Amino acid sequence: MTGIDQLPLRDELRGKSPYGAPQLDVPVQLNTNESPHPLPEALVRRIAERVADASRTLNRYPDRDAVALRAQLAAYLTATTGHPLEPAQVWAANGSNEVLQQLLQAFGGPGRTALGFDPSYSMHSLIARGTGTGWISGPRTEEFAIDVAAAEALIRERRPEVVFLCSPNNPTGTALPAETILALYEAAQDARRSVDGRGALVVVDEAYAEFSHRPSTLPLIEGRPTLVLTRTMSKAFGAAGLRLGYLAADRAVVDAVQLVRLPYHLSAVTQATAGAALEFADTLLGFVEELKGERDRVVEELRALGLDVTESDANFVQFGRFADAAAVWRRLLDHGVLVRDNGVPGRLRVTTGTRAENDAFLDAVRAVTKESDE
Amino acid sequence: MTGIDQLPLRDELRGKSPYGAPQLDVPVQLNTNESPHPLPEALVRRIAERVADASRTLNRYPDRDAVALRAQLAAYLTATTGHPLEPAQVWAANGSNEVLQQLLQAFGGPGRTALGFDPSYSMHSLIARGTGTGWISGPRTEEFAIDVAAAEALIRERRPEVVFLCSPNNPTGTALPAETILALYEAAQDARRSVDGRGALVVVDEAYAEFSHRPSTLPLIEGRPTLVLTRTMSKAFGAAGLRLGYLAADRAVVDAVQLVRLPYHLSAVTQATAGAALEFADTLLGFVEELKGERDRVVEELRALGLDVTESDANFVQFGRFADAAAVWRRLLDHGVLVRDNGVPGRLRVTTGTRAENDAFLDAVRAVTKESDE
Repeated sequence: MTGIDQLPLRDELRGKSPYGAPQLDVPVQLNTNESPHPLPEALVRRIAERVADASRTLNRYPDRDAVALRAQLAAYLTATTGHPLEPAQVWAANGSNEVLQQLLQAFGGPGRTALGFDPSYSMHSLIARGTGTGWISGPRTEEFAIDVAAAEALIRERRPEVVFLCSPNNPTGTALPAETILALYEAAQDARRSVDGRGALVVVDEAYAEFSHRPSTLPLIEGRPTLVLTRTMSKAFGAAGLRLGYLAADRAVVDAVQLVRLPYHLSAVTQATAGAALEFADTLLGFVEELKGERDRVVEELRALGLDVTESDANFVQFGRFADAAAVWRRLLDHGVLVRDNGVPGRLRVTTGTRAENDAFLDAVRAVTKESDE
Repeated sequence: MTGIDQLPLRDELRGKSPYGAPQLDVPVQLNTNESPHPLPEALVRRIAERVADASRTLNRYPDRDAVALRAQLAAYLTATTGHPLEPAQVWAANGSNEVLQQLLQAFGGPGRTALGFDPSYSMHSLIARGTGTGWISGPRTEEFAIDVAAAEALIRERRPEVVFLCSPNNPTGTALPAETILALYEAAQDARRSVDGRGALVVVDEAYAEFSHRPSTLPLIEGRPTLVLTRTMSKAFGAAGLRLGYLAADRAVVDAVQLVRLPYHLSAVTQATAGAALEFADTLLGFVEELKGERDRVVEELRALGLDVTESDANFVQFGRFADAAAVWRRLLDHGVLVRDNGVPGRLRVTTGTRAENDAFLDAVRAVTKESDE
């Protein structure tokens, strides 16, 4: 049998493992920030109907530009943020991961660097590696915020072509104030303009925006042609299985990603399913409101247990501190509850589930902390 | 308004246009090698049923490894080629373009080169560019074959890490004899082994394999761990709108692409739809047999008109020669028939349609060649 090391694989991939959380069969799965709510049956029927329609012309390539879907996404963002958006300012792909990959293919790549502030969504650095983009890991404060003065200094020193700001941040739950985003945007433009007069791309990953106490960054893109916002239907739309991510930005950015996107990247079936889910946006956002309440309750109850809980603007909560977070992760699993160990020292991350799932999680935490007297 | 040139876009993308054939609304569309046959209504119903099932757990991420789908694809390849294949030897993605992109991310990339023999499928060089892989364009003979001795010499001189062999070749229709594939595979291994002892990846793009007079390359992968075959459901399965491509190779190659694939790249909806189409493989392959007959008829009738027609093993036919192929393309369009101008000097490419569409095309060719006395 041939081993992977005998293949002419790229050197930087040798010894690496595929990205992905352990997929374990456990009663309470709170590890990948999915919605605990299945889609309403009326939406399931609508999806079947629209997919059947799309399948009748499945012998033809899909709309390469996904015009109808992008119009729906623009209308959704306009309605939920109050900021008017044209379909030409929106682009969609197979998950926000593919959107981020396209952005790095167009604006990053060999000889260029991207900068993020860790701990954050680890796919940012992995997609950088996959596109040959250099990666600079900037720090966060003890409270997982970004120190603006230090971050500006780092940007001025390293002059990255792309800056990632994840807000609300995964895995910590921390949202960035608008002033931080604006300050770092300006610093990034200045730093690059001094090199080639062209500025830098600043990507605000808003995968969890609908769960935030703060308003969306969207209105900030006005007059800032290199400020890009990315979103997903995996979380607020409860459709992780659909793999539909999108971006909003100046239309020139959308023109740019079209130079690197694989032609017909978004299937007719995906376009039809996403369109159906957008028709049910109001219903699905109702689940979001309920989950926000549950999230706030989990934060309070964990704090009542004496734990150190990071303020959360997402559908998950980071909690600790533990002398040995990996051991607590295993003991929670023994109690039938799967959470996520993201490697943040002393911390774990729990997705907000249904009320019953959250209760099961809180009971397990009580039992585990009692056992260990932590 | 911001222009794309004001953005910090990569230099090699400046002035480029997005890939894609013109999508024009014309009675007879024979330009993108789609199947002219809509899916049977029984399959449409089965897709709706399976997608509805998948939608009931759409709040969860899809099976990251698409295990069930890969088992079906392995069974399909085993049944149609007679060569036994394990699911672990198959990998699937959103179109064979994404499969090729993953292969180049793992085995090509910055500092490495890929070689193809032009004219061929132009996405090979575009995906190379998109992944930072250098591109070497090798020649074909006057008859669009590959001169083995010349190709071996080129491989030994340039020592590419990846070699693309498209068979049947798009846009010419030419299939490669097994001896050619084997000779170039050996040459590529020898050339790279002399550098780093590790061999080269040889990718046989078999997007049109089901339409060929020749058997598949599949049995050749046995004992050749760096020989990879790529396929698609866009052509033989009449499902261009589905975007499902796949590869067959040594399982180590599948392990390797999993290091670079975006996690959960293949949606639950795509997996369900592809699974349904595979249940109907026999019916869909019936359309393939009909199209092969029509393709052979088009070749004969074009030759009867005195045209120079390239031997075809695909679901399209390359024909010429014209002093001004672009002018003939436009005049066929005036007659309501859209074919493809791939930029091969003096030639055009026509997809095989229904009998009525092919008759309309042949009538248009007769009219156009009469008008111009070409």
